[in-house]
Amino acid sequence: MKNYKLTIQYEGTKYNGWQKQGNTSNTIQEKLETVISSITGESVEIIGSGRTDGGVHAKGQICNFKLTKYFDKEKILEESNKYLPKDIRIILVEEADERFHARLNAKEKEYIYYIDNGKVSDLFKRKYVMRFKEKLDIEKMKTASEYLIGKHDFKSFCQNKKMKKSTIRTIYSINITKEDDIIRISYIGNGFLYNMIRILTGTLIEVGKGKISPEEIVDIIEKKDRGAAGFTAPPEGLFLQRVIY
Amino acid sequence: MKNYKLTIQYEGTKYNGWQKQGNTSNTIQEKLETVISSITGESVEIIGSGRTDGGVHAKGQICNFKLTKYFDKEKILEESNKYLPKDIRIILVEEADERFHARLNAKEKEYIYYIDNGKVSDLFKRKYVMRFKEKLDIEKMKTASEYLIGKHDFKSFCQNKKMKKSTIRTIYSINITKEDDIIRISYIGNGFLYNMIRILTGTLIEVGKGKISPEEIVDIIEKKDRGAAGFTAPPEGLFLQRVIY
Repeated sequence: MKNYKLTIQYEGTKYNGWQKQGNTSNTIQEKLETVISSITGESVEIIGSGRTDGGVHAKGQICNFKLTKYFDKEKILEESNKYLPKDIRIILVEEADERFHARLNAKEKEYIYYIDNGKVSDLFKRKYVMRFKEKLDIEKMKTASEYLIGKHDFKSFCQNKKMKKSTIRTIYSINITKEDDIIRISYIGNGFLYNMIRILTGTLIEVGKGKISPEEIVDIIEKKDRGAAGFTAPPEGLFLQRVIY
Repeated sequence: MKNYKLTIQYEGTKYNGWQKQGNTSNTIQEKLETVISSITGESVEIIGSGRTDGGVHAKGQICNFKLTKYFDKEKILEESNKYLPKDIRIILVEEADERFHARLNAKEKEYIYYIDNGKVSDLFKRKYVMRFKEKLDIEKMKTASEYLIGKHDFKSFCQNKKMKKSTIRTIYSINITKEDDIIRISYIGNGFLYNMIRILTGTLIEVGKGKISPEEIVDIIEKKDRGAAGFTAPPEGLFLQRVIY
């Protein structure tokens, strides 16, 4: 068996997220499987590093798939990009070790959330940012973010109420910067729960507005209750930036 | 009469250019006139600094319009942006001298053309660049651009064969840079003919490919014949960046 590792970019706007599950159609995974199966002549299963929600984008999603026969990696890249929709691109195809598994081997992930905080929205970025006009106190958001770093039970930041698996995760860093009117929040961690980045971002925005104090983050974590955290920020500002193995 | 100066941005993709003329509908000018007339209660005529073709974008288009009654400029900005399509934004409203005319008073304009020269196209930029995969020799393009600078008869670079007015224009600077896979060509001049920037860009691309030598630019200018210059680059890579008064 030949194992191929793909680096993928997509604009999530028109799709129901990464993963096909049950009756969900129009997913990124489905589009990739259809095109790659057709090109290679084998029925392939694409394994992603993780799911992204409907509307979420990716600059560096990683996935892998196996073929029984060798197929030239440059040909996979060129042919796939001919037939894939213009909002999904394969940017790199590599041959991987037979044991490489895009989800199980992922060690760290970086997600970036973009907020357009300007008086007038930047129309050229409108599909790639959350629009938020009210003034935000970045310094308070930075202070709050420091309480989130480390190994915690992030149950308060998980949308899935029926989650039976562990909700403990480690966040290695949160970096908040502002350039012109765009606030950029980078999150690096060993893994993230369902909607976790979007709830973390909504909570940091409420800190920036002064509705939650930075120190309250400690209580929110301790409560282990989704109701204690802030709102779920919309998907359009979120990018899966990279996956580290 | 009150005179208002507007700074406008738009994504030209869906529109038939700036100007309504004859039966042309779905223009940027038309959208602005409809919304501003409705908000101010006066039938306004919007005067643009110049036309942009169908599909061409603007980061700093300037226009003006007159009202018989005073209307708060902040209100014009906020109300217009509520009703304008999301791909057209007013970013600044200023009160101008009664004699200010957006077209007649324009002294210089800057246009920027973007070429995505990467192996795989950047999907997040796909609506804002010309896609061109073949290798381009940037140094040759820079040399060629130097022959274009100055006051010349640019008839070879004008699509309008029936042009009766002067085709003499002055180009003050052409700046070609490359960052990652994106080639950026900035043109500053006192005015540009119909399709001129797109033909200049197509010609520079043919220089970059080696089809035209940099020195041939001198002959192309002298021939005063559209057939002598290169192809017309597509509209999606072109931005009206700013207008100087």
